[in-house]
Amino acid sequence: MNKVIRVGIVGYGNLGKGVELAIQQNPDMELAAIFTRRFTDGTESSKLVPVETAAKYQDKIDVMILCGGSAVDLPVQGPHFAAMFNTVDSFDTHAKIPEYYREVDAVAKQHNHISVISTGWDPGLFSLHRILSESVMPQGKSYTFWGKGVSQGHSDAIRRIVGVKNAKQYTIPYPEALERVRNGKNPQLTPGESHLRDCYVVPEEGADLEKIAREIRTMPHYFVGYNTHITFISEAEFNENHLGMPHGGFVVHSGATAGENKHVMEFSLKLDSNPEFTSGVLVAYARAAFRLWQEGQSGARTVFDIAPSYLSAKSPEELRAHFL
Amino acid sequence: MNKVIRVGIVGYGNLGKGVELAIQQNPDMELAAIFTRRFTDGTESSKLVPVETAAKYQDKIDVMILCGGSAVDLPVQGPHFAAMFNTVDSFDTHAKIPEYYREVDAVAKQHNHISVISTGWDPGLFSLHRILSESVMPQGKSYTFWGKGVSQGHSDAIRRIVGVKNAKQYTIPYPEALERVRNGKNPQLTPGESHLRDCYVVPEEGADLEKIAREIRTMPHYFVGYNTHITFISEAEFNENHLGMPHGGFVVHSGATAGENKHVMEFSLKLDSNPEFTSGVLVAYARAAFRLWQEGQSGARTVFDIAPSYLSAKSPEELRAHFL
Repeated sequence: MNKVIRVGIVGYGNLGKGVELAIQQNPDMELAAIFTRRFTDGTESSKLVPVETAAKYQDKIDVMILCGGSAVDLPVQGPHFAAMFNTVDSFDTHAKIPEYYREVDAVAKQHNHISVISTGWDPGLFSLHRILSESVMPQGKSYTFWGKGVSQGHSDAIRRIVGVKNAKQYTIPYPEALERVRNGKNPQLTPGESHLRDCYVVPEEGADLEKIAREIRTMPHYFVGYNTHITFISEAEFNENHLGMPHGGFVVHSGATAGENKHVMEFSLKLDSNPEFTSGVLVAYARAAFRLWQEGQSGARTVFDIAPSYLSAKSPEELRAHFL
Repeated sequence: MNKVIRVGIVGYGNLGKGVELAIQQNPDMELAAIFTRRFTDGTESSKLVPVETAAKYQDKIDVMILCGGSAVDLPVQGPHFAAMFNTVDSFDTHAKIPEYYREVDAVAKQHNHISVISTGWDPGLFSLHRILSESVMPQGKSYTFWGKGVSQGHSDAIRRIVGVKNAKQYTIPYPEALERVRNGKNPQLTPGESHLRDCYVVPEEGADLEKIAREIRTMPHYFVGYNTHITFISEAEFNENHLGMPHGGFVVHSGATAGENKHVMEFSLKLDSNPEFTSGVLVAYARAAFRLWQEGQSGARTVFDIAPSYLSAKSPEELRAHFL
């Protein structure tokens, strides 16, 4: 058996906790330490340490998994940690990925580390399917549907409205839109024609419900252009039915070969816990990062640059004999 | 733009014809020649040449796609052509893959070529999903369902029975079995419990239909252990409804993270023409073979060893900006 891969975690929110769990399912890995800004005395987990001490762990950690958010944390943490460690992150601000890649790539190369950026399921496994489909069937069209699942960003946006105590927004693909794509109709679909936004809102006592509903429906970027359902519920109901973080989605590619035969490729995920599943992906790519680094490679990588065998704990011989 | 990749085809059956079509959809490729044993005078396609002349094309072809069968052709052709060309094949005798890999790997390394073996959709894209799923969710179980689609091997087996003029066998997954897997029930399923075998048989005039049906149902390896439906039809009906080569299938992986949340990953294909779709996969891997060879690599490769970006005609920058 190969050396056990020592993994560090930066950030102890939902994703960091998911990674802690995922490591338990991978016998070739062990958790070295969890770095947090909210460190008090380490009673929560014996592995919790203040994030400022990370530099001291350079000999004790093979791969650091960065579990912060893309808006504020990762743009700073990505390059920062790439100077000290091999890293894996889930940077998902699509428009800024090329810039983020260049920045992390430069630092990782300079310090001889591997940094796998923007992995998880979208960006990540879904991205991989988009290029796999497009490469195999270039005369075709790919559609991505998200949900049914919780959009953290949309839920947060509702919670910022005055009079809202708590809220959860589910993104739900329209079954008819999905069916049309599966049937090879190649429709033109805006995100609003593909998805419904279903909101469950706990109002403060005495809040103006109509005003809240109007503010949700007219919120630019988030809800304008979408069919938005709003249901006001009690805090008790919220706690009973809406604490989970399910998600999922579909990448459907439909096209025709030159013989005018039609073909549909579909990849779908149905996830009870978005952060726990995402963590499984991050951990598999941590294994890949470590192996690429062992080969003497350095720089930033995405899911596009990594051969599938690097993700598996099994040997190439075993994979060829039993999985091919 | 990079140099156009010059592709050769060995074998001009359904798969070879599919590859000829697939090359038309990939502007970075051109068809150099099609090598056939049944060469007469080249009136069918101006690119048809006798297979014996292949050695003369070593400077004119970047990748040779081997479109012969796995039983007889590829065990000989794989090593033979790996000595002269970069190659891609769809060798699918699962039990013999490790041996075939070793043989082709040795020849390809010796002659500084890349040989991508056993690609297509199963083995190929389905294999890739089996290890992707298993790596991301190690506490889970993968199921492969085939169909609805034509099994060439089973159709051939029926045609060899005395009194049978023509036959087609469709493999059909049981919807209930698929549903149980999708719902995370992790059932124990034999292939016979997962699939129905649906046969359409054109008998010779005066043939003993009961005897034919009995011979089909009791054929070891092919039909024993399966629920087998047999329908006798006229040649006219056969030609009207059963000339196509549709296929497809599902790889479903269901498992749980350590937080006891359940997750289902599913990849499916619905193909109007099995050989034409398979050809699209072979051609994408031909692109990868050429690039790996350009980098100075050599030896045998499977879908497990090849990073997705090698399959795409697009640049890494374009992929990161628009597909991630």
